[in-house]
Amino acid sequence: MKPCVDGASFDDPQTRRAFLRRSALTLAIPGVGAALNACSPREGNRSTDSGRAAAATGAASGTRAPGQVHNSDSRLDSAVLKAEHGPGTSATGTAAQGAANAAFHRFAPELPALPGGGSQRIHFHAREAPVRIDDSTVVAAWTFEGDVPGPIVHTRVGDTVEFTLTNDVDVPHSMDFHAAQLDPAQAFKSIIKGQSLTFTFKPRYAGAFMYHCGTSPVLMHIGSGMFGAIIVSPRKALPAAKEFVLVQNEFYLAAAANGVRASDYQKMLTTMPDVVAFNGRPNQYTKEPIRVKLGDRVRFWVVSAGPSHSCNFHIVGEQFDTVYLGAPPGNAVRGVQTFTVPPGGGMVYELVCDIPGEFPFVNHGFGHGQKGAMGILVVEA
Amino acid sequence: MKPCVDGASFDDPQTRRAFLRRSALTLAIPGVGAALNACSPREGNRSTDSGRAAAATGAASGTRAPGQVHNSDSRLDSAVLKAEHGPGTSATGTAAQGAANAAFHRFAPELPALPGGGSQRIHFHAREAPVRIDDSTVVAAWTFEGDVPGPIVHTRVGDTVEFTLTNDVDVPHSMDFHAAQLDPAQAFKSIIKGQSLTFTFKPRYAGAFMYHCGTSPVLMHIGSGMFGAIIVSPRKALPAAKEFVLVQNEFYLAAAANGVRASDYQKMLTTMPDVVAFNGRPNQYTKEPIRVKLGDRVRFWVVSAGPSHSCNFHIVGEQFDTVYLGAPPGNAVRGVQTFTVPPGGGMVYELVCDIPGEFPFVNHGFGHGQKGAMGILVVEA
Amino acid sequence: MKPCVDGASFDDPQTRRAFLRRSALTLAIPGVGAALNACSPREGNRSTDSGRAAAATGAASGTRAPGQVHNSDSRLDSAVLKAEHGPGTSATGTAAQGAANAAFHRFAPELPALPGGGSQRIHFHAREAPVRIDDSTVVAAWTFEGDVPGPIVHTRVGDTVEFTLTNDVDVPHSMDFHAAQLDPAQAFKSIIKGQSLTFTFKPRYAGAFMYHCGTSPVLMHIGSGMFGAIIVSPRKALPAAKEFVLVQNEFYLAAAANGVRASDYQKMLTTMPDVVAFNGRPNQYTKEPIRVKLGDRVRFWVVSAGPSHSCNFHIVGEQFDTVYLGAPPGNAVRGVQTFTVPPGGGMVYELVCDIPGEFPFVNHGFGHGQKGAMGILVVEA
Repeated sequence: MKPCVDGASFDDPQTRRAFLRRSALTLAIPGVGAALNACSPREGNRSTDSGRAAAATGAASGTRAPGQVHNSDSRLDSAVLKAEHGPGTSATGTAAQGAANAAFHRFAPELPALPGGGSQRIHFHAREAPVRIDDSTVVAAWTFEGDVPGPIVHTRVGDTVEFTLTNDVDVPHSMDFHAAQLDPAQAFKSIIKGQSLTFTFKPRYAGAFMYHCGTSPVLMHIGSGMFGAIIVSPRKALPAAKEFVLVQNEFYLAAAANGVRASDYQKMLTTMPDVVAFNGRPNQYTKEPIRVKLGDRVRFWVVSAGPSHSCNFHIVGEQFDTVYLGAPPGNAVRGVQTFTVPPGGGMVYELVCDIPGEFPFVNHGFGHGQKGAMGILVVEA
Repeated sequence: MKPCVDGASFDDPQTRRAFLRRSALTLAIPGVGAALNACSPREGNRSTDSGRAAAATGAASGTRAPGQVHNSDSRLDSAVLKAEHGPGTSATGTAAQGAANAAFHRFAPELPALPGGGSQRIHFHAREAPVRIDDSTVVAAWTFEGDVPGPIVHTRVGDTVEFTLTNDVDVPHSMDFHAAQLDPAQAFKSIIKGQSLTFTFKPRYAGAFMYHCGTSPVLMHIGSGMFGAIIVSPRKALPAAKEFVLVQNEFYLAAAANGVRASDYQKMLTTMPDVVAFNGRPNQYTKEPIRVKLGDRVRFWVVSAGPSHSCNFHIVGEQFDTVYLGAPPGNAVRGVQTFTVPPGGGMVYELVCDIPGEFPFVNHGFGHGQKGAMGILVVEA
Repeated sequence: MKPCVDGASFDDPQTRRAFLRRSALTLAIPGVGAALNACSPREGNRSTDSGRAAAATGAASGTRAPGQVHNSDSRLDSAVLKAEHGPGTSATGTAAQGAANAAFHRFAPELPALPGGGSQRIHFHAREAPVRIDDSTVVAAWTFEGDVPGPIVHTRVGDTVEFTLTNDVDVPHSMDFHAAQLDPAQAFKSIIKGQSLTFTFKPRYAGAFMYHCGTSPVLMHIGSGMFGAIIVSPRKALPAAKEFVLVQNEFYLAAAANGVRASDYQKMLTTMPDVVAFNGRPNQYTKEPIRVKLGDRVRFWVVSAGPSHSCNFHIVGEQFDTVYLGAPPGNAVRGVQTFTVPPGGGMVYELVCDIPGEFPFVNHGFGHGQKGAMGILVVEA
């Protein structure tokens, strides 16, 4: 079987060069991507009946079209490294429209309540949007639902999540939930503008999981803003706590044009970010802290979205009584000052707030932390 | 509430620019920092009576003055990233004085004996000093007690540490012990030249903990030398062992001026260090190894001070029978070649030296290890 | 005692400069290294009878010659950082010979069967060879046995490995097995062209261990291709599984000369790689996937050879039911999306493939993963 990158054979240099030109175009020229990314259709769906509840039902929802691209995450394009084309940025289509009017809003870090009834339906749109990350910076973002990160999803081990992605834009996109066990070639495949795809899963493990667009090059899609957190509570509830979700990410930004900064793929490849943030805005919780009461147990569900760096999570003046390295309530490490969440990973941190005060939480790798991965937890007496 | 960086409101661009100029001055012009860092005094002390023994008693010691700055760690200055001012370095005040005469000394890695009586008083001075890190390099360091790292502190779970910081220099400084649970806005606040601050704590967890200056920008203060280790033994003693403390840090150095190299903040932001060392001197224990006897159990308390990088600790020719990820004696991992200490974290590594020989210990991330994070453990028959 | 780098005293600047020139020559001029690396012989063998089966028997095998260098890993040369000489590359001797004819081959990832009888003899040659890592890139590699990585070794806790290294080339080389507990100054010492060295060990712990050339500068030797994996199974077999070995490494490449790219030491020091790969070839398992059957338990023994970066191992669409942080079957973490293998370390990942499909496995630090650390696991119904 010939491998395929969005339909292009890796074995054929001619095709690869064509793909590279196409990729460049996809990034640079709005409206062209969809047509260019046409790919020979897959041979049909494989069974996903595996004695498990998870099922990729995208095909069943009637949204597959001839020329639909499949998951490019499984056909990864390292050729983009070869600099045969100009640098790609996120300044596509609608990403920068209305940037001047983009208002800052604090991203609410509270874990949303668990939906009742054991199941939920979620519908995200892949959108481009200017996102104001601080007073002076608006990013031309690729997003789920118009924000960076995307909405926090909260579910529970064994509950059902029925997820639909609709792609509103010219660049192909997809969705990869780390909490799901599904065939990526089916459930996480790329779709083009106007298409929708639905899949269903029941999380097997508790934890703080990342979700992200898995379309190639993944670095570009995560780096441009398409990521978020899906929190899976265990079936037997953890100890009562004030629960917060923090998603760390890096921004790699081109110079401002018309008041908006695009994400810069070549810069992403250097792994030297301009900004590192919790929940998409540098230092937002320094300016508007997270507040709890004296005596509260506090649980941070921390995801490191990267695209490249870990989060060395630490709270100044406090210590974690528990860090869960795997699925809580198992895999608990006790008495921790700092523990690292890998890029693409998540961990759960708990402490008892038995001292009033103002406790900065930081990425203690300060070369990155200093670029905005800081906030304050206020413990009110 | 308006957030404040050493008294400057983040919401006011005018004030922020002023702050930036002030920061640059603080770094560049000795003697000016103290006056410039005047900030509206805090509204008084909050109670730290929390049913725990820890208490921030800084205010009680009578050293608070009008215009005293509070902990800037909780008011973090990401604005320094914006390059609105020239590069800051540690070449302040007395940091370079007498550099030509700075003698090299090996930093003793032995864990100091545990003080008796269940309590100890420690008094550190924040000082600037030229520190010779090898034959050809003297660093204009910001220090605790004139050396990099600062003195090793050894205490025990539940014992009392009464700590006093006196600031001898023009740049504001502070102290943040990762072994303490205290309100940073009180205990870890910045003080200016001539001020002292005292706080008391009882460590709750055993482990290898970092301490450091937490004054903003933290990256600059750690990166310029203000860090060290506080080792907390558990109340029930661990197995008898030869115990050593290794603190890894990175140096980011400007070109030599008058025989001394300042720490370079802009370089710190690149996370590409010039030197990586255990206990402040590259390869010092390669030149003068750590020596133990055949049959000894050896315990390394390893802290990664960063400011940015982890330490992938490994001993050539040996394996760790135990690595404690959290508070020893819990959280033990068995049979380990290499495990990572995150920046701002600490872990404890044990092995039984049942083979005589010369065993290099290294940061096995060799892009950094090769820059000086190496030493030798000699096991004498 | 004066420390020694391949015989040169660190304390003597004159000698050090000479060494540096020599090092540069060693790298640059084939055939000169051996003569230049002559060093005063060691004073004889120390006993390695330590009540353990491990014994460095190199001296006993009669290959020690006057002028033989000893393990330079224990006399580490940080002086190479000082840029007193030009940049070293791997374009030495025979490294580039016949590059045009170097054929690509997929590196078989299957864990080799455990040799019977409780012992095995292994003989590696240190060789230089052009290694084709993809269609357009041939690397002038320093290798064990002509490939990057070297051959996968499979043994078992308590079994005997008798290993012989023969150096076929002008640059001194050595062997460091992380699975062995041996005096590096004896067993892992550097040997020059034409020499052989034999040592024997019995692994104490199970796990995925790295091996590599430990000759100074280690960064250069690992970075040029001299590494591999030794897999140690526990005595009581782990659950039946399809077992694969993945060794992640980085390539730091100079521009092509005559169709071959040398490894570039100065670039290695920047820690910004050109290529990151599993088993030495970027994306090879994307092009030719790893295939298992529905229902298989799959075990990945993952080593991160670096030289500098960790591997944040993740499988798209799947989750690990078990990650062993230390020696399996202990130290198990359950329910993991992504866990990090440190450079110089190894971890073991297991999952049950109960869904058919195409599951990309990646380094989820995508700034590196996108440079080739990706592959596909196909689960066939």
